[in-house]
Amino acid sequence: MNASEGVIIVNFKTYVESSGAKAIALARTCESVADETGVTVIVAPPMPDLAAVVAAVTIPVFSQHTDDIKPGSTTGHVSLENVLASGAKGTLLNHSERRLRISEISSLVQKAKRDGLSTVVCTNDLPVTRACAALEPDFVAIEPPELIGGDVSVTTASPEIVGESVRVAKKAFPGVRVLCGAGVKTGEDAAKAIELGTNGVLLASGVVKASDPERVLLDLAAGVQR
Amino acid sequence: MNASEGVIIVNFKTYVESSGAKAIALARTCESVADETGVTVIVAPPMPDLAAVVAAVTIPVFSQHTDDIKPGSTTGHVSLENVLASGAKGTLLNHSERRLRISEISSLVQKAKRDGLSTVVCTNDLPVTRACAALEPDFVAIEPPELIGGDVSVTTASPEIVGESVRVAKKAFPGVRVLCGAGVKTGEDAAKAIELGTNGVLLASGVVKASDPERVLLDLAAGVQR
Amino acid sequence: MNASEGVIIVNFKTYVESSGAKAIALARTCESVADETGVTVIVAPPMPDLAAVVAAVTIPVFSQHTDDIKPGSTTGHVSLENVLASGAKGTLLNHSERRLRISEISSLVQKAKRDGLSTVVCTNDLPVTRACAALEPDFVAIEPPELIGGDVSVTTASPEIVGESVRVAKKAFPGVRVLCGAGVKTGEDAAKAIELGTNGVLLASGVVKASDPERVLLDLAAGVQR
Amino acid sequence: MNASEGVIIVNFKTYVESSGAKAIALARTCESVADETGVTVIVAPPMPDLAAVVAAVTIPVFSQHTDDIKPGSTTGHVSLENVLASGAKGTLLNHSERRLRISEISSLVQKAKRDGLSTVVCTNDLPVTRACAALEPDFVAIEPPELIGGDVSVTTASPEIVGESVRVAKKAFPGVRVLCGAGVKTGEDAAKAIELGTNGVLLASGVVKASDPERVLLDLAAGVQR
Repeated sequence: MNASEGVIIVNFKTYVESSGAKAIALARTCESVADETGVTVIVAPPMPDLAAVVAAVTIPVFSQHTDDIKPGSTTGHVSLENVLASGAKGTLLNHSERRLRISEISSLVQKAKRDGLSTVVCTNDLPVTRACAALEPDFVAIEPPELIGGDVSVTTASPEIVGESVRVAKKAFPGVRVLCGAGVKTGEDAAKAIELGTNGVLLASGVVKASDPERVLLDLAAGVQR
Repeated sequence: MNASEGVIIVNFKTYVESSGAKAIALARTCESVADETGVTVIVAPPMPDLAAVVAAVTIPVFSQHTDDIKPGSTTGHVSLENVLASGAKGTLLNHSERRLRISEISSLVQKAKRDGLSTVVCTNDLPVTRACAALEPDFVAIEPPELIGGDVSVTTASPEIVGESVRVAKKAFPGVRVLCGAGVKTGEDAAKAIELGTNGVLLASGVVKASDPERVLLDLAAGVQR
Repeated sequence: MNASEGVIIVNFKTYVESSGAKAIALARTCESVADETGVTVIVAPPMPDLAAVVAAVTIPVFSQHTDDIKPGSTTGHVSLENVLASGAKGTLLNHSERRLRISEISSLVQKAKRDGLSTVVCTNDLPVTRACAALEPDFVAIEPPELIGGDVSVTTASPEIVGESVRVAKKAFPGVRVLCGAGVKTGEDAAKAIELGTNGVLLASGVVKASDPERVLLDLAAGVQR
Repeated sequence: MNASEGVIIVNFKTYVESSGAKAIALARTCESVADETGVTVIVAPPMPDLAAVVAAVTIPVFSQHTDDIKPGSTTGHVSLENVLASGAKGTLLNHSERRLRISEISSLVQKAKRDGLSTVVCTNDLPVTRACAALEPDFVAIEPPELIGGDVSVTTASPEIVGESVRVAKKAFPGVRVLCGAGVKTGEDAAKAIELGTNGVLLASGVVKASDPERVLLDLAAGVQR
């Protein structure tokens, strides 16, 4: 993907609506929106569906999580080597629902570079954004507490926090790209996120649980392209 | 599968030799041995390959691990619902490399019964075997410390511990089936394990890292059928 | 303590009201009630206060938790050897707010026997109670979900679950003593718990956050003696 | 303590030699060296001994670890409020034997500032040092892998890594003080660590397991004062 273009990452989480055969169906919807709009759409399906989704679509597939372990006697875990072997192109790390230790994030970011996998490190407040950007991942996905939950969006709520997060991250590592991981529900929100200096959006239930995911994705794609 | 027959479970762990395309290849080898011998061979591939392996073979596929979580906002974890949606038929629980809390094992065993998934709870010493059998899973897989590592096998080492584990487990829950999870490398070992009262074997590197996995599997299959 | 007598264990948790100097003050209140009534009252203060509370009172002091680790290079953890060196007489294990793996509980119960420390393993439902009793600890403290929270007590709610838990535990290990860890707020509740076959009660906020902890403890002591 | 002076932090870990009554004895040895030399010596005893050691000595006592939890229903954990109530003056965080999540370190550093507690965040490689310094703790204690174990010391091994760690940390947060957490066994090593730009040393077995801890401490104190 081109570093300057807007990106949409859809985190399938572990929803029943996006597991198994439904994971493949939703990934195909994402693929068709990517094909139609030219926007980069990345999907992160449930762990057991990773290789199966890779086999079903041509868009990039990311793991939701990777353990900082060696391949071999680590039953029930997921190594970077497993992620690579599945055909995935990258991994989310440190999602708010799956936090990692700082030494693990550092180790995984370095190994992923070696393996050609992209890393998206999720962060919460400004100090964590600064710290994680300092590890030099491809992306940080910021989830400012001010923007989480309810009907708060980057357009209705005070947008300073997003701009400030972008500044803090880029100061720590100029090469990092920043995703807005909260407060984005519509194309208008996505456009606002881009305007505030982010390189795209990371979202989950807004797409997964939508009555018409394709319509939502088309709206978002229009937003990140504005 | 028939409760009285011998079972072979192959844990792929996270070995590079059994990840991605190689996971599918090894699962197919297991399938062909199962077809040829009539023995039930179950495979437990790396987490990202679960659904892809299910799609590739007709033998039962088990998850290496399941988290005791609700589907939804649990990014990077694996719920029973995810395992079920992937098409897997069961799950290992509490493997020595992925221990669970007792309340989690209890909850997962109960939910798996509801969902029609088989459970294999790994145990180490006699008290843990007794405790885990009391949770009424389908299988306990015993890994007596006396039999772990090196060249120790149930045939060369003192076999009393296996027989005693079977007695302890069946006393706590008569319906439980017991697998020998350590000390089995050859068909002779497998036959000895069956003779000592177990219902089969759980093994990993002995198959995964063999120069000729099919030959090893055929030998084991002959052993559990004796 | 005498195996047939009623026991009261007060878990100080990490409340500010029972930390530091206030931990010592509350432990002294427990001591004076024990002295006055002859009932065994055991206190489990916050981890940093353990040795200091031991030095301040003559009643038994238990750790709220112990890690299954070796002494030495395990910074920030608490080994059984640390608990022993602090002068404590026992430990809670597997509290609902600090669950342990089944192999850890088994290992800790066995080592505690060797070291002369008492173990109180907390459990939730019947299968977990059965499993934990099978590890042969000194006590299981049952917290039936039916009795947790709100104003539910063993006297107002259906008491069958407590009696059934006692039966299940004693069947798995006749030597175990059972504590009622939920649904006890008053002396009447405590008396009911004893009547249902338990050997006492484990409680926390009912004492720690009481406006007059001494009065509550005297009431409970009268209950377990009835 | 004065920001420009050399500091010695002795981590008691969970050694039997530094637990219970022996924790108090060792803390008193540290106190007497501090009194004699004027060097700031800080002790971090086992968790159960924290309040008891605080009561026994006048030198600063730090917790080995703090959990990022709220006081109250968090049995078996250690909150900042517990640490504060014990009379301790600070806490180690993210020790290599007790790693924390980045969001936890960030939260704890911010809360500790509010409560007037000092924070010492342990780090391993350069990216982690940069990231943790960005959280603005009082200290980072660096443990370069190059200096861990065996007979390697900052004087015998290549010292560039220590100087580079100091530069990286101070660039991320000019106010941070840096401790050398590996490769220091003698006063000469300590002097070298100071010369390389650190503000002191963090060590454990070199003192705890010494046949004559007082002599070792006097030597180290002379080193940090050079």
